[in-house]
Amino acid sequence: MDFQSYFSDRLTALQDEGNYRVFADLARYRGDFPRAEHTAQSGQQQDVTIWCSNDYLGMGQHPDVTGAMHDALDRCGAGAGGTRNISGTTHDHVLLERELADLHGKDAALLFTSGYVSNWAALGTLASEIPDMIVFSDALNHASMIEGIRHSRAQKVIWKHNDLADLEAKLAAAPANAPKMIAFESVYSMDGDIAPIAEICDLADKYGAMTYLDEVHAVGLYGPRGGGIAEQEGLMDRLTVIEGTLGKAFGVVGGYIAASTELCDFVRSFASGFIFTTALPPAVAAGAAASVRRLKQSGSERKGQRDRVAAVRAGLDELGIPHLPNPSHIIPVMVGDPVKCKFISDTLMEEFGIYIQPINYPTVPKGTERLRITPSPVHSEADVAQLLGALSELWNRCQMARIPCAAQ
Amino acid sequence: MDFQSYFSDRLTALQDEGNYRVFADLARYRGDFPRAEHTAQSGQQQDVTIWCSNDYLGMGQHPDVTGAMHDALDRCGAGAGGTRNISGTTHDHVLLERELADLHGKDAALLFTSGYVSNWAALGTLASEIPDMIVFSDALNHASMIEGIRHSRAQKVIWKHNDLADLEAKLAAAPANAPKMIAFESVYSMDGDIAPIAEICDLADKYGAMTYLDEVHAVGLYGPRGGGIAEQEGLMDRLTVIEGTLGKAFGVVGGYIAASTELCDFVRSFASGFIFTTALPPAVAAGAAASVRRLKQSGSERKGQRDRVAAVRAGLDELGIPHLPNPSHIIPVMVGDPVKCKFISDTLMEEFGIYIQPINYPTVPKGTERLRITPSPVHSEADVAQLLGALSELWNRCQMARIPCAAQ
Repeated sequence: MDFQSYFSDRLTALQDEGNYRVFADLARYRGDFPRAEHTAQSGQQQDVTIWCSNDYLGMGQHPDVTGAMHDALDRCGAGAGGTRNISGTTHDHVLLERELADLHGKDAALLFTSGYVSNWAALGTLASEIPDMIVFSDALNHASMIEGIRHSRAQKVIWKHNDLADLEAKLAAAPANAPKMIAFESVYSMDGDIAPIAEICDLADKYGAMTYLDEVHAVGLYGPRGGGIAEQEGLMDRLTVIEGTLGKAFGVVGGYIAASTELCDFVRSFASGFIFTTALPPAVAAGAAASVRRLKQSGSERKGQRDRVAAVRAGLDELGIPHLPNPSHIIPVMVGDPVKCKFISDTLMEEFGIYIQPINYPTVPKGTERLRITPSPVHSEADVAQLLGALSELWNRCQMARIPCAAQ
Repeated sequence: MDFQSYFSDRLTALQDEGNYRVFADLARYRGDFPRAEHTAQSGQQQDVTIWCSNDYLGMGQHPDVTGAMHDALDRCGAGAGGTRNISGTTHDHVLLERELADLHGKDAALLFTSGYVSNWAALGTLASEIPDMIVFSDALNHASMIEGIRHSRAQKVIWKHNDLADLEAKLAAAPANAPKMIAFESVYSMDGDIAPIAEICDLADKYGAMTYLDEVHAVGLYGPRGGGIAEQEGLMDRLTVIEGTLGKAFGVVGGYIAASTELCDFVRSFASGFIFTTALPPAVAAGAAASVRRLKQSGSERKGQRDRVAAVRAGLDELGIPHLPNPSHIIPVMVGDPVKCKFISDTLMEEFGIYIQPINYPTVPKGTERLRITPSPVHSEADVAQLLGALSELWNRCQMARIPCAAQ
């Protein structure tokens, strides 16, 4: 087989469909984020303002975080030097796991090299190692959850997104004595909607299911100590597993689960994706721990973000630019056409120095192409004004519909 | 189902089998590695010398590496802030990928969050996205390769470890026109033996298979520029994919593949484990790039390691302490009993301040329990003498057999 031709053909097909991804080459300015230097494919460089980062609170440049990383680099050096079992557990990992267990009110936490790996490995292990497990998976769960469940080869039942009646019907239809797990997210990344966690926990209790909640778009951002939506709603103790990331609001990288000592120890002992991989660098663990600590004590970053999100939403409403209403910090500005979405994104970058990656199929359904905007406390009022002005101008240029009622 | 009891029972069973892992809590001393502070479960602290790290050359504390990380932290902050596609590609990632492509004489390279993920995602994608692919997998391939192939659900044919006749028989038995891939490692981690790469490439040519070579225990360590065993043997251009890690000899964290532009772009475009995960922090990318650059230009670390490996081997031979002969830097000292292996490891730590994690089943077959020693250029002659003295004393205390012929 001519592998090279096969790869080329598949890539050409992607390009023809408009789904070929071109990565924006950025160099963030520490201390001046959301500003960054963008290097175009031509080699031309330009200063831009990032409006689509998942460093939701700008913690990636917080002096507590970078200071802890500098310090750990000076103390311990660059890498961990091994798997957690073979010389790679550093004291910084131990301290971070304690910090995370405390954040979620659980007895234990377990670190992974990424949020993706934490979902893949934890779900994969729980679903494969508990005999006859049936996993009830929300239809819009993240790729990492889907792949973990798929890898387990356990029976999977997909329930309609955030639909309690459908979930209950499917739980009721399963054998009463089969082990069950409900896997879902709190804040869904692309629409920014939030799951009815309490009601899902009620169903879990009724049908004897364990619950696995992905809070990657919520940790650091919601709840008085940044424990996520479950903390905000006083529900942390009702969840069997809370999964989170250190790479979004906490501004570093890595993933984790928080749960009972036994569950964490079980995953620690049986998850291939945890056991056979080099541990995170001590500096990453130290930086993440500093970020978690800071956001447990300080609400100012969360308040700053809420204010900015409200300002952008209000501005969009005034301009009649359509965006999905939701109770979260994610503002999906709906374009509804892949070519226009890409054009607006390209023009924002080239003419206005505004970087918002277009979100097209297959990440979102066809016809719902969007600009996913994530305002943060480090965006200034002037940044907001510039963004709104640019969007308005492009809305005119592309002859895109406005929503009259919202424009009042 | 009572999940907690189930977890407890499984963990108890692990303990009864002697397979329950206890992690050593270490704090490496930067600049004084292999020295580290060990915190016992009792809370007691002790200085130890690490003899089982995969930071094979001590690059985790090299000033080029830590300096580049400090610099990137100051320039860009802590995390990348997004997936590679959505605001997470920083210029440091772009530069590192170029450095890695150059290292292996390939047109392109693609970064992943870990070596585990690079194997899992790249093998999983190639094997699932190329229709009717048959993967010929060496029997001792790493867990990450096994899981990637398993995840792909492609047909898998396992050939006897490093056995060319068996590989050829199995290639010949497969349909001539089916797409084929031979997946194997260069240096195998636990035995330290090395694959016959040239002969495997010959078979690949004969049967039209692509080749996927995992060089994680070889990159940085072998070849004039640290390109691995394939570079040392002048074979890099014969391999379709070379996979490596930034977390062992390069001293940081992360994984990658190097291959044709089309193949890397294909994996970049279709691998869930690449697409839907936060990019590595820019400081990690910058540190790794500095390490790769250093080891391309400098052979002194490799020479220092070879000298230390030879000194430890010669000392073990003199003492008649059995170790697996192999052509690599990995010295498996064979104990052959899980209880003695754990006892020796515990006593080395407690009495001698020497840390070598015991390697028991299921990582190695029962009856081949071992201490896996990895001498590095940062171990001093005095460290070697202390290690040999401690092993000799424990060999007496445990009444372990010596090899008379080797003791002459």
